[in-house]
Amino acid sequence: MGSGLSVGVFGATGAVGSEIVRLLESSKWQIDNLGLFGSERSAGKSVSWRASSVSIQLFDPNSHHVHDLVLFATNSQNSLEIAPTLASQGTYVVDNSSAFRMNDAVPLVIPEINFDTILPESRIIANPNCCTIILLMAVAPLRAFGKIKRIVVSTYQSASGAGREAMEELEVSTRAYLNGEDFTPEILPYPYAFNLFNHNTEIGEDGYNGEETKMILETRKILDDPEIAVNPTCVRVPILRSHSESITVEFDGDAPSVEDVRECLAAFPGVKIIDDRAANRFPMPIDSNGSHDVFVGRIRKDVSNPQAISLFVCGDQLLKGAALNAVQIGERLFGLN
Amino acid sequence: MGSGLSVGVFGATGAVGSEIVRLLESSKWQIDNLGLFGSERSAGKSVSWRASSVSIQLFDPNSHHVHDLVLFATNSQNSLEIAPTLASQGTYVVDNSSAFRMNDAVPLVIPEINFDTILPESRIIANPNCCTIILLMAVAPLRAFGKIKRIVVSTYQSASGAGREAMEELEVSTRAYLNGEDFTPEILPYPYAFNLFNHNTEIGEDGYNGEETKMILETRKILDDPEIAVNPTCVRVPILRSHSESITVEFDGDAPSVEDVRECLAAFPGVKIIDDRAANRFPMPIDSNGSHDVFVGRIRKDVSNPQAISLFVCGDQLLKGAALNAVQIGERLFGLN
Repeated sequence: MGSGLSVGVFGATGAVGSEIVRLLESSKWQIDNLGLFGSERSAGKSVSWRASSVSIQLFDPNSHHVHDLVLFATNSQNSLEIAPTLASQGTYVVDNSSAFRMNDAVPLVIPEINFDTILPESRIIANPNCCTIILLMAVAPLRAFGKIKRIVVSTYQSASGAGREAMEELEVSTRAYLNGEDFTPEILPYPYAFNLFNHNTEIGEDGYNGEETKMILETRKILDDPEIAVNPTCVRVPILRSHSESITVEFDGDAPSVEDVRECLAAFPGVKIIDDRAANRFPMPIDSNGSHDVFVGRIRKDVSNPQAISLFVCGDQLLKGAALNAVQIGERLFGLN
Repeated sequence: MGSGLSVGVFGATGAVGSEIVRLLESSKWQIDNLGLFGSERSAGKSVSWRASSVSIQLFDPNSHHVHDLVLFATNSQNSLEIAPTLASQGTYVVDNSSAFRMNDAVPLVIPEINFDTILPESRIIANPNCCTIILLMAVAPLRAFGKIKRIVVSTYQSASGAGREAMEELEVSTRAYLNGEDFTPEILPYPYAFNLFNHNTEIGEDGYNGEETKMILETRKILDDPEIAVNPTCVRVPILRSHSESITVEFDGDAPSVEDVRECLAAFPGVKIIDDRAANRFPMPIDSNGSHDVFVGRIRKDVSNPQAISLFVCGDQLLKGAALNAVQIGERLFGLN
């Protein structure tokens, strides 16, 4: 692995995949071979890459060039079908889908928090759900102040989590609304222009949607704490690419001071504090859009519970919520960080 | 008061005031005299009223026609200056500003919940904060299941709470964004197109903004429970006229069942249940825009706390959040409901 790497990206033209390609392009990685894979719809398209360009290929398992690292940014079905074969050939797979996240043999990794759960024999590494990553970047460091008992979180999720077409639908439907024109949603289940709605994943018997259940289970796995209680409410708001979250963290003992929380989070890599009470300046999606950092503010003692603090966070769903976290896992796997 | 009423509306051309006029117009009230008052900017303008029209006047305390009822939809300063004089003349004042809400001598009323706090001698009645009304329409009925200990609520607030000009700024700035044009906000502190931000009220020493502090204090007064703990996070989202709220209610004992909560809320006047898990159909702003009801859904047991339930609600900020609640107070004062 000393010289150049051979890297593959599945779903390279999608919202997350194209961010992965852009991150690889601007990284210091020496990439000798880049394989970009896509569906029949995008096969043959050309993607600019450093001084030249790379064509999107259909993946053919029989003529597969062995990559050192493959990043998956497609659906769970693709990952389930292809990743185990690649891993058995020794390829590292970082999978952005939910296919392997709750598999006990697969580490679920936010590099700043639990990179050490990747074992020498690990080949498939799961990239967590976007809301989970953005939540835990702000919450995991707070374990320095004692055991966390419960997290209550309400999300303000962007269109990007539903892919590029959902982002386009938000823009197109909003323009139609402003022009007084009718619009029938095709990608999302409900009108999105100046509207919000429950996350469009299946509702379980307990009344939680799929996104919320992911946040509960993935938080427990990443924090290695099967007892931590999480109550998420996941809502799509008409925002393009950053997720925001209103978070209350309950400790087993008394809550830390605002100053201690601010200092702790400011020192954590990948977190940036925006918490200016006098100026009423706190994190906003327009801050985090395009940024590698998760922004944290509204840090305050919960007036309703002496053991709790509240926070408000924003993070780019496509970057730290997906593509960046995956690329960071790769960087650390190959000692490139 | 048997025949016709004399009614005044302050701020009759504003976002809330014009909804009040429209509600009065379509009501069964017999109004013999309607006085519409506004600022110098709107004085002289004509507002359509039933078969004719009414001119906006500047208020002159020296030549004031005595009304039976005056509804204020302007700022606190106006209310503080004018309302006590009107009340001393025997006029009922329903005030939509925050001027008198925490005044012990002034009832703070959501008619479905605490109309009985209006005493025979009460003349000024305060209309609660919009978020408080929408929250409590869903929460107050749940006291049937035992003492409520704590409420954790995150809001998704519309532009209308900042007035008509904020609604226009949301639309104009969104159009500019879609056209790739620059836009400098003039009404709201931050860009609003596909963005969200902390509620633009002053932040107190405890880190809570003014809107959140209102929700805490007003909830205690309306529920007549000085001990109830409330932890609100108030956020403006790019929505035009409905507020949404993600709510977790913690009881002193075990939480009621989902079925019992649904039945209890469905029977409460002014609440409509939209809670179809199979169809992933829950309250949305486009449901509540223009509706008199507060919509409730996502009713579920809080998986993180056996004493809690979670809900998601939407209500029209200009109607039940402001104008409608004020008009309903008037209706009941004069036995018109």
